[in-house]
Amino acid sequence: MYKYSHGGNAVFERGNKDIIDLSASINPLGMPESVASAIIRDIPNISRYPDNFSASLREKTAAFEGVNPDWIFFGNGASDIIFRMPRAIGATKVMVCAPTFADYQRSAQSYGAEICYYNMSKDSGFSLDSSFLKAVQIERPRLVYLCNPNNPTGKLTERELIEDLLDFCERIGTWVVVDECFMDFTGQASMYTCKALLDEYSNLVVLKAFTKVFALPGIRLGYALCSNQYLSERLYFHGADWAVSNPAQAAGLAALDNANSFIKQTVDYVAAERNVLERELTNLGYKVFASSANFILFQNPFPFNLGERLNSAGIRIRSCGNFRGLDDTYYRIAVSTKENNFKLLTAVKEASE
Amino acid sequence: MYKYSHGGNAVFERGNKDIIDLSASINPLGMPESVASAIIRDIPNISRYPDNFSASLREKTAAFEGVNPDWIFFGNGASDIIFRMPRAIGATKVMVCAPTFADYQRSAQSYGAEICYYNMSKDSGFSLDSSFLKAVQIERPRLVYLCNPNNPTGKLTERELIEDLLDFCERIGTWVVVDECFMDFTGQASMYTCKALLDEYSNLVVLKAFTKVFALPGIRLGYALCSNQYLSERLYFHGADWAVSNPAQAAGLAALDNANSFIKQTVDYVAAERNVLERELTNLGYKVFASSANFILFQNPFPFNLGERLNSAGIRIRSCGNFRGLDDTYYRIAVSTKENNFKLLTAVKEASE
Repeated sequence: MYKYSHGGNAVFERGNKDIIDLSASINPLGMPESVASAIIRDIPNISRYPDNFSASLREKTAAFEGVNPDWIFFGNGASDIIFRMPRAIGATKVMVCAPTFADYQRSAQSYGAEICYYNMSKDSGFSLDSSFLKAVQIERPRLVYLCNPNNPTGKLTERELIEDLLDFCERIGTWVVVDECFMDFTGQASMYTCKALLDEYSNLVVLKAFTKVFALPGIRLGYALCSNQYLSERLYFHGADWAVSNPAQAAGLAALDNANSFIKQTVDYVAAERNVLERELTNLGYKVFASSANFILFQNPFPFNLGERLNSAGIRIRSCGNFRGLDDTYYRIAVSTKENNFKLLTAVKEASE
Repeated sequence: MYKYSHGGNAVFERGNKDIIDLSASINPLGMPESVASAIIRDIPNISRYPDNFSASLREKTAAFEGVNPDWIFFGNGASDIIFRMPRAIGATKVMVCAPTFADYQRSAQSYGAEICYYNMSKDSGFSLDSSFLKAVQIERPRLVYLCNPNNPTGKLTERELIEDLLDFCERIGTWVVVDECFMDFTGQASMYTCKALLDEYSNLVVLKAFTKVFALPGIRLGYALCSNQYLSERLYFHGADWAVSNPAQAAGLAALDNANSFIKQTVDYVAAERNVLERELTNLGYKVFASSANFILFQNPFPFNLGERLNSAGIRIRSCGNFRGLDDTYYRIAVSTKENNFKLLTAVKEASE
């Protein structure tokens, strides 16, 4: 019944730390320098319970995000919050796109909610348009998940469409979760983030995480932004206390020290490397779906299993066979370091010959 | 609606690290020495996802507990597992004792389960006897929680009673969770733990944690033991992946290095200090409920608020006013270091004059 359905587990599956793991989409620059020493300094605090309400971290994150500290709820990774959401709001019917991150669906299943899918079209390059809003108007779910930019397609959704969605959903008492965990990689966050809409829409929840952009997946730290205090109360209630460990809170505080320059550096690096990867994969005959994120979705038109061939070369990429709406001719790769990306392209070239 | 209802948050509430916090029951010896360096060594791994299945830690914990590694499920603290339980087994009706740890009830509420309470009697010193089994036979819940030794009473429950409970519950398809998070403090674990029953009873779940005995509440690391593989699958499904961070897995592995001698040392220290505290509190006129754990429940017969007086003296103890079945004349104190216990007794004496 349960099957691990994500990337990022390569080292454990193979027991081999030398594998190049491009199956999880983590910042190629690695974690900010300040994080390690912050965790070390905080070790004595491990013998105390963590602050259940992450007060210091909420304060600093509020300044970083430009929101009220009371609007922030921290969880054991964004996934923890995704699993609390349906229970917190009593989501009897949940709408998710396909393809997208699997946990929206699983959290709805765990709650026993009815799930309706909006299938994004390959022909439109998996971009969301107003037909998504029409589907929501017909289905009238209690909760809508929207990943922006979307995982695994890398596509951004226009803010105007999200505003229309929020307007409609507010009228029918429906919550909208916009997962912006990859937003800070795009270099277009100011144009696309929904943060500025939080004050206006009390049915809007923006999800973010330290996982991807600060390269801290091992520490488990994600957060929800929402102006509706009712939701925060409910999120606390519908899950374990002390969800955010002391090392996670210390790491988060440290990561925010020079967050804006770190993100700027990240955006530049990722954009340059993504361009190279998209161009070269296209040249090699693969169908690339232009991405705004730090990962790339592409389709293999050749009659061989690319994932297996790369595996043999010590490179793990994410087969998208278990994404609803895709199949195992699709792959997602992280935009990694220049060195790893070069190795990947070399291996793909060899595999394709 | 949501109200933080535990001890252990003193430093954050008061913003004062000098407070003596006896409201959370953590090993007074502190964390094992090996933990800090293990966390430091593991910091580079924070940029990878944790092993979702905690394979190495399960292996080592299995050797420590004397069970099959496949019988172990790790969570973000035992509380994480408590919140997964009702969903994992579809617990429409849950039986909890009173007074006991609040999260059993809250997890049942979160699932929307009916809750029935078994009120332990003050006159029997809050010990569980066969009338508990009778109550279960009448109520026929789908899930029974039993904390052994019980928090906040410190009372152990006889294994024979638990076997009878398991027999009955097995016949009616009911799960029994025995929370043994404080068992390793008692010095009587071999006589009282239900671990040896795991093989026989597929409806038995034993909960444990690194939180208390290894003084690691800030790292979030708890586990369930169950011979029923179905449950493990369901626990993974009904909660977020990657629940156990890399620092937590590293800390757990290190804590187990000399676990048996560390626990022996802990048991001796706690027993000696508990005796002093119980004797002196009794001498000062307080009604002490004899404890087998690393905390003591007592009742204040005097017409003043002891908690407030100790607060003024910089000592935080756990008022039990929000434990169902108790009121604010009851307090729980951790058996702390010799120094802290002496300070507590001095302050209690002054407060009682």
